[in-house]
Amino acid sequence: MTAPLRIAIAGLGTVGAAVADILSSRRELIAARCGRAVDIVAVSARDRNRDRGVDLSAVDWFDDAGVMATAADADVVLELIGGEDGIAKAVCENAIAAGRHVVTANKALLAMHGLALAVKAEAAAVGLGYEASVAGGIPVIKALREGFVGNRVSSIHGILNGTCNYILTTMRETGRAFDDVLAEAQALGYAEADPTFDIDGIDAAHKLALLASVAFGCEVDFAGVHVEGIRHISADDIAFAEELGYRIKLLGIANETPDGIEQRVHPCMVPMDAPLAHVEGVFNAVVADGDAVGTSVLQGRGAGAGPTASAVISDIADIARGAILPVFSVPASQLSKPARVSIENRRGPYYVRLTVLDRPGVIADVSAALRDEEVSVEALLQRGRSAEGSVPVVLTLHETGEAAMQRALTRIAALDTVVETPCMIRIEHL
Amino acid sequence: MTAPLRIAIAGLGTVGAAVADILSSRRELIAARCGRAVDIVAVSARDRNRDRGVDLSAVDWFDDAGVMATAADADVVLELIGGEDGIAKAVCENAIAAGRHVVTANKALLAMHGLALAVKAEAAAVGLGYEASVAGGIPVIKALREGFVGNRVSSIHGILNGTCNYILTTMRETGRAFDDVLAEAQALGYAEADPTFDIDGIDAAHKLALLASVAFGCEVDFAGVHVEGIRHISADDIAFAEELGYRIKLLGIANETPDGIEQRVHPCMVPMDAPLAHVEGVFNAVVADGDAVGTSVLQGRGAGAGPTASAVISDIADIARGAILPVFSVPASQLSKPARVSIENRRGPYYVRLTVLDRPGVIADVSAALRDEEVSVEALLQRGRSAEGSVPVVLTLHETGEAAMQRALTRIAALDTVVETPCMIRIEHL
Repeated sequence: MTAPLRIAIAGLGTVGAAVADILSSRRELIAARCGRAVDIVAVSARDRNRDRGVDLSAVDWFDDAGVMATAADADVVLELIGGEDGIAKAVCENAIAAGRHVVTANKALLAMHGLALAVKAEAAAVGLGYEASVAGGIPVIKALREGFVGNRVSSIHGILNGTCNYILTTMRETGRAFDDVLAEAQALGYAEADPTFDIDGIDAAHKLALLASVAFGCEVDFAGVHVEGIRHISADDIAFAEELGYRIKLLGIANETPDGIEQRVHPCMVPMDAPLAHVEGVFNAVVADGDAVGTSVLQGRGAGAGPTASAVISDIADIARGAILPVFSVPASQLSKPARVSIENRRGPYYVRLTVLDRPGVIADVSAALRDEEVSVEALLQRGRSAEGSVPVVLTLHETGEAAMQRALTRIAALDTVVETPCMIRIEHL
Repeated sequence: MTAPLRIAIAGLGTVGAAVADILSSRRELIAARCGRAVDIVAVSARDRNRDRGVDLSAVDWFDDAGVMATAADADVVLELIGGEDGIAKAVCENAIAAGRHVVTANKALLAMHGLALAVKAEAAAVGLGYEASVAGGIPVIKALREGFVGNRVSSIHGILNGTCNYILTTMRETGRAFDDVLAEAQALGYAEADPTFDIDGIDAAHKLALLASVAFGCEVDFAGVHVEGIRHISADDIAFAEELGYRIKLLGIANETPDGIEQRVHPCMVPMDAPLAHVEGVFNAVVADGDAVGTSVLQGRGAGAGPTASAVISDIADIARGAILPVFSVPASQLSKPARVSIENRRGPYYVRLTVLDRPGVIADVSAALRDEEVSVEALLQRGRSAEGSVPVVLTLHETGEAAMQRALTRIAALDTVVETPCMIRIEHL
């Protein structure tokens, strides 16, 4: 049997501790599965004395994770610190420069610097594993890069942020407002104190940019992702969606088109019979369309210590077995650099909710604005009359172009009788 | 770059032709993804002159696939002939004996001889890939063996036969009878002329035995699978299931218990909110519960040339990259040999449909039989009255033991007023 694979762990938060626990408590099983033992030899964490439920007294402790990446007597460095720059980036760069493999759960880092790190890792002939950075424990990078290796994948979409999906699910189940459910999610630990990355779609966009790169063999292009979050989704929208036969999901969608790569993250209404309509709560799911395999769906817990640790260990095991793959499916030098396809090019149906003054002629004004942009109405719903004088009006629009829809929304927002910014949600028949 | 990986293909049916087509038409992309080219060097098929849409004029043709496995100048032999013995087995054995890797889509062969083949392959230090044998193009073997390598998987279940799922879905959508839908499926090519393996659950049992071995690290035990098919499911059952809030699915279920391994394939009623309730038509899906990763679902096309070829190429790519894993997750010598847990040990709710004479006292007789076995009734439905004098009566039973349920069914079947064999379907809240 080959010599043990030596692991250095940078960061002992809940994920790092879970990885250490599994590697320690399951050492023999993992050795049987990998053909060699996997041993933790070094650790860097802020608090050396905290009880993490696993005995790390025999390993080398480093105060500086960046130093550890270079100095530890390790084959693999796990970067579990987080953050798109700073120490996390230094740990990865130092480890690669010292000829060590890197495994990370850091989607922000890879979305920003993934290409540069891949170039360095491939030049150094070391692995750069990041299964844990997308969709938790779901082996989606492995499925795309290895399972679908014979395919051209033309399209990928998914529920990539568990916090948003939890909030949207809870809003639907309870009828409560966004702010209220967000506050509860923060209290329960499902949302961060600063929830911006999650609820504004940035975290999902990080993950989508990585998935698109692997699926299409193109350079990671986070800046090319059109990003919208879920702050503007109201309890009314959720209820109207249900009435219209849809569920609202924050989706990441990437398509390879003849004109380039389209990448977008925004709330969508999906039909009740779509596979993703039933992925609820903190679960994530990814749908990929391969030309040989057809449509495949992978679903599971998108975050948390256990799922993330599971994915980290999967990457470690691949390295233990000597399976070092091109980071983004083909060598970094062969990744394409495609044009960006703007959200303006989207065509599809739309949902729009307006808050209007309850007086005659409003619908005529709105209809005229839509007609002037050649946007065709499928249905119009008005429910109840308000004491305060304003009422919600909901429209669904037949398939139309995004640019025309945006122009029509600008016209509508300018009407005196429309008292709030219109809420637009794209309807996706995926 | 490493030398090309040389492939010999035994069997050029739809799957073999699809594999040859992808390897030929996508040679450069696959080389970029695998780090080396993959070339077809030999082929064995019955008809040398049939147009398969791919140019194989430059490769070595063999009349005898068994001879090719030994004599071809190949690194990998693909066994795409099928059948649990005979030439398929000889091809695999000969290839391994000659030091060649084997990739196969043959679940019947592996369910019967997988352990023996794994012992031989591991002794010869060659790979034995069989991703294509379970759930088509869904990378479920890869997910279990690599993605969940850090987990203890305690339970696995899935829709493993697309023919059965297509028939059950079509029966529900159209209200038509089993025989009628089966005949149509045969005409459309979704079911074989001899449909026994599919509709009697044997094919699903082959796959379940392989999944259980990988998930639990135990020897393949096809003979230990309790198998029931779907021939007895009527249009009435489908309609009653819908009314009760369930869908009927043929599931394979395997659990690791303190007493051993439970493996069973039979029709189940699953609640409408279960992930598998919405997997329809020819789609397959596998649900695995890992202690770190939680519940994960993988879903996709379970059969067909494209999905199967996709999985075969995934196995070839792993071999090209040098990733040779223990066949069933740990080396064959370390696989456990657990006790079989009989279906008699199942506990759960049940659905029973009886055809009874439409006369007073029948329900009293049936109720007495259930009471005598301490089986407790949850609900009883009777719909309509029949001109012929017999009517369907449907019961759902609270959680009870399988043995008691079987004894009660024997008593009920013996009643003069019960005119057909009772139809029992297990209700699974998975």
